[in-house]
Amino acid sequence: MRSFDRRYAALRGLIDGRLASLVPRSKPRDLMDGSRYVLRTEGKRIRPVMVMLSCEAAGGRARDALDAAVALEMLHNFTLVHDDVMDDAPSRRGHATVHTRWGVNTAILVGDVILGMAYRTLLRSHARNLPEAMELFTEGLVEVCRGQGLDVAYERDSTITMRDYYRMIDSKTGKLFSTAARLGGVLGHASPRHSRSLGIFGQCIGRAFQVQDDLLDVIADEGHLGKRIGGDIVSGKKTFLLVEALRRARGRDRRHLRLLMSRRRGRLSAGGERRRVDLVTALYARCGVMDAARERIRIETGAGLRALETLPRSGAREMLRWMAGMLVQRSY
Amino acid sequence: MRSFDRRYAALRGLIDGRLASLVPRSKPRDLMDGSRYVLRTEGKRIRPVMVMLSCEAAGGRARDALDAAVALEMLHNFTLVHDDVMDDAPSRRGHATVHTRWGVNTAILVGDVILGMAYRTLLRSHARNLPEAMELFTEGLVEVCRGQGLDVAYERDSTITMRDYYRMIDSKTGKLFSTAARLGGVLGHASPRHSRSLGIFGQCIGRAFQVQDDLLDVIADEGHLGKRIGGDIVSGKKTFLLVEALRRARGRDRRHLRLLMSRRRGRLSAGGERRRVDLVTALYARCGVMDAARERIRIETGAGLRALETLPRSGAREMLRWMAGMLVQRSY
Repeated sequence: MRSFDRRYAALRGLIDGRLASLVPRSKPRDLMDGSRYVLRTEGKRIRPVMVMLSCEAAGGRARDALDAAVALEMLHNFTLVHDDVMDDAPSRRGHATVHTRWGVNTAILVGDVILGMAYRTLLRSHARNLPEAMELFTEGLVEVCRGQGLDVAYERDSTITMRDYYRMIDSKTGKLFSTAARLGGVLGHASPRHSRSLGIFGQCIGRAFQVQDDLLDVIADEGHLGKRIGGDIVSGKKTFLLVEALRRARGRDRRHLRLLMSRRRGRLSAGGERRRVDLVTALYARCGVMDAARERIRIETGAGLRALETLPRSGAREMLRWMAGMLVQRSY
Repeated sequence: MRSFDRRYAALRGLIDGRLASLVPRSKPRDLMDGSRYVLRTEGKRIRPVMVMLSCEAAGGRARDALDAAVALEMLHNFTLVHDDVMDDAPSRRGHATVHTRWGVNTAILVGDVILGMAYRTLLRSHARNLPEAMELFTEGLVEVCRGQGLDVAYERDSTITMRDYYRMIDSKTGKLFSTAARLGGVLGHASPRHSRSLGIFGQCIGRAFQVQDDLLDVIADEGHLGKRIGGDIVSGKKTFLLVEALRRARGRDRRHLRLLMSRRRGRLSAGGERRRVDLVTALYARCGVMDAARERIRIETGAGLRALETLPRSGAREMLRWMAGMLVQRSY
């Protein structure tokens, strides 16, 4: 375990180092400062570490996947910057969001230019199978936009089912995880079978990750989370908890949830927000949806790990397994 | 001339046909409808036609550059959608802008997904030198974001010189024109020398095009332009006319312009806007900056056409020459 920790820190160090060096010191200042700010803000770097480990698990060298890994992290950051604009989120990872510091126009451009620099970085990887990597990367980009589009569309839709929910998170979150694992596979020259397995592993872990993320919105520690508890409840986001609660709730609870689901983000006072969060959290507890979420996380993680079994035994494979466990046990 | 017209229409037809078929009929509806709306709105398709003709002028077949051409048009459209959000422009090419019809959030995503689909289309071109094409395309993307960033930054800067102005338009407008010409060159297997010439041609024509665009803001016919006359004046955009007028104006005119340059887009009444536009247009005429713009267009076009001379004589080369002339004579 300690050695996994150490290796994770080492890979993260490589990734952070590269990310910190990517934005040139040129004009326009706001755009470059904003981009540097995003790429230097501390993150867990799960996706890029997954790229590097998947490459190694497929038989390649982790180092050879560094550029692709960094590119994928940038793709992820591009989505965060634009998502934060769309959600008008004030903070992320405990820091002010780009549009809060530099305005919406600069934030849109920061996202755009980070995406451009992500492609630039991927192109630099000079892999023999670069076109295949580019294709995976691009499909990841298109799908993650679709997922975010579903998320936006769902905000005004009070008829979201569990199936809709999975469709949304498979695109919005799962796709980048599966892209990470498959991208590593491509760079490590994985066989089609192993490549498929890595894709399934990524998708399942991505699902587990997103359900965990939804869960943390109501049970996490605010200081660690780096954002307000109950933010999803206030904004009316269609989370696992909300969709599952609606399936389970009866009577007054059900009516209350229906109302919540149909309501668009309204301006509430701080006290009003706090009351709504407390009310809905209590309702979630009554319906047992927190436990349902934990069960779902267990199931998806199990499916992901089973897919991983088809790859040959290796240190990298064991570390991917360890990572999966770590992700679903995280408390922020 | 008639045959050039016909060929242009034919190439445009191919490009429009491909653009119309690219967006799948899938969910989320707003995102897909918005993307289809953008790609189907009529445009001059200058950049993609330039890709195809440059490919042919370099010795390739225009048809082989169709995917790359369409990809570049999509890259251009991505910038338009996001620029319109940033400028809060109500209409474009005579149609309501995406954020006006579907809201800012969907417009941000429409831009993003169009860019993703642009890369997808470029990847589909299966050219032997695809990595080189991808690199050109990506550098175009990064540069155009930088140019737009400069444009945004200049809005609040009252010290913009002609040099700053060229730096901005070379990135914001010139880069996509030079990328168009060079992309065609790459796909037509141009020699390094011809590739360089095509790049210079594109950049010069891009400059001429942008100065013409600035000029049309005050002299065009509103119905044809598809947007309000004097929009740049109202928004305080740093156009060729404004920057050149500041270099020339003295006394009261100069003080007036300084004030205008330092002022951020303010909410004026319709009458107030009209008065400002009339006032500044009269001032421009007094300083002779419209004629200076025409002279600049002539110089840049000439430089572009000279660069083109280094390519072997061909129908495609003559047509590029014809296009350059057509662009600077356009009245909208």
